[in-house]
Amino acid sequence: MTFLPVQPLDPAAPQRRLAYHPARPLLRPFVPQAAAFRAGTTTPRTVLEECIATIERDEPAIAAFVAHDLKAARIAADEATGRWKAGAPLSPVDGMPVVVKDMIETAGLPTQMNNPIYAGWESRRDAAAVLALRQAGAVILGKTVTTEFAVGNSGPTRNPYDTARTSGGSSSGSAAAVGAGMASLGLGTQTHASTLRPAAYCGAYALKATHGALHAGGLAPLAPTLDHLGLIGASLEDVWAAAVTIARRAGGTPPHPGLAGTLAVPPPHRPATLVRLDTLGWDETPESSRAAFEAAIERLAATGTRILDAGNDEATAALEATLRDIGDFANDLLAWEARWPLAAYRAHGPEMVGARIQDLLARAERMDAGAYLAALDRRAALRAQVASFAGRAAGFVLLAASGPAVQDHAWTGSRNYPLPWTLVGGPAFALPVLEAEDLPLGLQIAGFADRDADACAVAAFVRDTLLPR
Amino acid sequence: MTFLPVQPLDPAAPQRRLAYHPARPLLRPFVPQAAAFRAGTTTPRTVLEECIATIERDEPAIAAFVAHDLKAARIAADEATGRWKAGAPLSPVDGMPVVVKDMIETAGLPTQMNNPIYAGWESRRDAAAVLALRQAGAVILGKTVTTEFAVGNSGPTRNPYDTARTSGGSSSGSAAAVGAGMASLGLGTQTHASTLRPAAYCGAYALKATHGALHAGGLAPLAPTLDHLGLIGASLEDVWAAAVTIARRAGGTPPHPGLAGTLAVPPPHRPATLVRLDTLGWDETPESSRAAFEAAIERLAATGTRILDAGNDEATAALEATLRDIGDFANDLLAWEARWPLAAYRAHGPEMVGARIQDLLARAERMDAGAYLAALDRRAALRAQVASFAGRAAGFVLLAASGPAVQDHAWTGSRNYPLPWTLVGGPAFALPVLEAEDLPLGLQIAGFADRDADACAVAAFVRDTLLPR
Repeated sequence: MTFLPVQPLDPAAPQRRLAYHPARPLLRPFVPQAAAFRAGTTTPRTVLEECIATIERDEPAIAAFVAHDLKAARIAADEATGRWKAGAPLSPVDGMPVVVKDMIETAGLPTQMNNPIYAGWESRRDAAAVLALRQAGAVILGKTVTTEFAVGNSGPTRNPYDTARTSGGSSSGSAAAVGAGMASLGLGTQTHASTLRPAAYCGAYALKATHGALHAGGLAPLAPTLDHLGLIGASLEDVWAAAVTIARRAGGTPPHPGLAGTLAVPPPHRPATLVRLDTLGWDETPESSRAAFEAAIERLAATGTRILDAGNDEATAALEATLRDIGDFANDLLAWEARWPLAAYRAHGPEMVGARIQDLLARAERMDAGAYLAALDRRAALRAQVASFAGRAAGFVLLAASGPAVQDHAWTGSRNYPLPWTLVGGPAFALPVLEAEDLPLGLQIAGFADRDADACAVAAFVRDTLLPR
Repeated sequence: MTFLPVQPLDPAAPQRRLAYHPARPLLRPFVPQAAAFRAGTTTPRTVLEECIATIERDEPAIAAFVAHDLKAARIAADEATGRWKAGAPLSPVDGMPVVVKDMIETAGLPTQMNNPIYAGWESRRDAAAVLALRQAGAVILGKTVTTEFAVGNSGPTRNPYDTARTSGGSSSGSAAAVGAGMASLGLGTQTHASTLRPAAYCGAYALKATHGALHAGGLAPLAPTLDHLGLIGASLEDVWAAAVTIARRAGGTPPHPGLAGTLAVPPPHRPATLVRLDTLGWDETPESSRAAFEAAIERLAATGTRILDAGNDEATAALEATLRDIGDFANDLLAWEARWPLAAYRAHGPEMVGARIQDLLARAERMDAGAYLAALDRRAALRAQVASFAGRAAGFVLLAASGPAVQDHAWTGSRNYPLPWTLVGGPAFALPVLEAEDLPLGLQIAGFADRDADACAVAAFVRDTLLPR
């Protein structure tokens, strides 16, 4: 095992700039290669070696990893290769190269959370999702950079398309590794925006399933009613197969029984109606990104899908108005719920945690239980408002981030587009099907709580429409 | 710090047998001594030294601890002593000697869960409840024996009144330490019966508050919708002050805002009506314990409280019938929810976990999500049935365990009396106010969810009635 302490941003790291083309990404899909694995024309070991070659070439520029175990990965990939050859893979993800955000527990690899308190720390157990994937044959390649405790200071990771830009956060390393072709799947977490945003910035697919529908056991706790397991993958098939594999083997976070669905992406479903949402993020979205989004909406409308928006539908206008005012109560929920464990970390000494964590704790200290209950009420009202669309539309279409990755390494970007569905608790997909400024621009398809498979069918249709194969 | 690896039962340990008298227990109350601390006639340091002397004398016979740090405890007790002398204690528990079950995370002391996988392991953070108590000035004395992962093989702990008997489990060491006068408070956990049962066996007070009302962060997860923080204390005042202190500083497990109440035990409340419940445990309760319970019921009735029972009230008869049939679905809830982390522990090798854990995993493997949902439905029906008494009675009175501690070290006793209120999710107190066979016999006062203070007022009345001060 190679153990790399988390480093600050390295100003002397190699630079690179690649133009993003949605039809020719750096991604390395795994599940879509099942027929080739079965036929023996390629193998999980071959995919892994491609990932490793990419790591060896690009990791100095991108800095996605904090630890990896290539030797163990090669052994696991060979075992998977044997099972595919024997016609008996354990699952569609048997042999899939997977990286794990360093906020998620892994047996045999440290979990360090980008804070010196946890230097070299080991949980001695796999998180529920890691265990499920491992039991299904997936190859756990290594641990990836997170911002401090998924909420504080940024790590060293750079964007795979432009190393002068952020990879986003807090699942910085998982998104960069998948976006760069170093792995087919990256586990992340999302408490405000931490999966969809980095995936969008790095040109990767992502799914934040219904809250609770994928077991969160072994994710370092931050804010329990907001914390989601996030899946970042090289294709819609990869994230969906991983989600269903985790749900079948680990279930949901009790009392949620777990996401339901088939291992295969459901047949693409052309929605009769979609709701277009601009949210607070529209104001900060650059003109070229707005234009790319408008063009996508037009192409969807051209298939016959009716697009509800704030201009043609009162309920949509009302929802957008609500979404422009969620930042404060989202901060209250996060601050109150994250008092523990953040205060336990700060007890090691105030100098042991960054300024953002100090600020969150100070916000919580200004609150009382009444303020928390008020924030819960606001969220419940938002959820009811979204649920009221269930009879009228198949889902929601919005950007996954307000433009391409920002040119800033200290800031992991705006949360304004991913935040709403974190609060709603329903499924949200990021699709890397748009580009702006020659960089990835993510599109978000969001759905209704506990209807993850329906949202996936819409996402598949949108992907096929905007990115014909 | 003295670090003691968890040992098996030592057959050569010293033996002892003490007669239990509810009016003269070994308990070492702390909160009731506030006036003396203020007056300077005793100090937290003095209380600690009494605890330490008891540990030095009795620990070889009782084996309650797996680790302690007496040096740090003395420093903390002196600081608390200074604050009381200055008239500025941080809280009613400032200086209280507290022990912590080895399933609960502590900074600076290992958390080993009575399994070799976790030998010497440190969480590097305090659980929410530990942090809250520490911030309120409590003295964290050490870590106490748990059964394996709070659900498997027993540890070496013996009953403080009869070392030939179990101290109960899974919070074996916390109950024995408090019962023996080695600490004023012990933190435990309860997923089926693990706090009320050992407290009852060891002659200690206990509170299992409403599920979620005390923050469970940093309790090693077992079955999230069943896992409760448990408080075992030397008096009702000790457990209640600790509960309110934890709630005020840590809140509840999100989204629960936290238990509400005053730091002082509410004024004793003579209930107009109490519901007497015998549950499945009655059948296994020895005759002398039944007689002690009947006598207690008579004394309560003599105060003017009306006692509903299965003979005089149809709804009570119906509830008892329900309670006689909860074992199977309780096992289903536990097995399904505990798949993770138990499967992650078993992944270290099947020989690394005990037979009970293997059995639970096997049970879960025979279940599907439908079976889990059916168990959740059964629990919801039980909760509704209990809630229907809210207008008719102030609470429920039943035994806390089906007799005194069993004479068996491999078995920690029957769960039949504590299990119902674990499932109900409401508050339940154990009061060491009865005796049978010269051993402690616990009485349970159970209440309605989120009305913990009301249940405490009833518990205070029952204690004062049965144990006049």
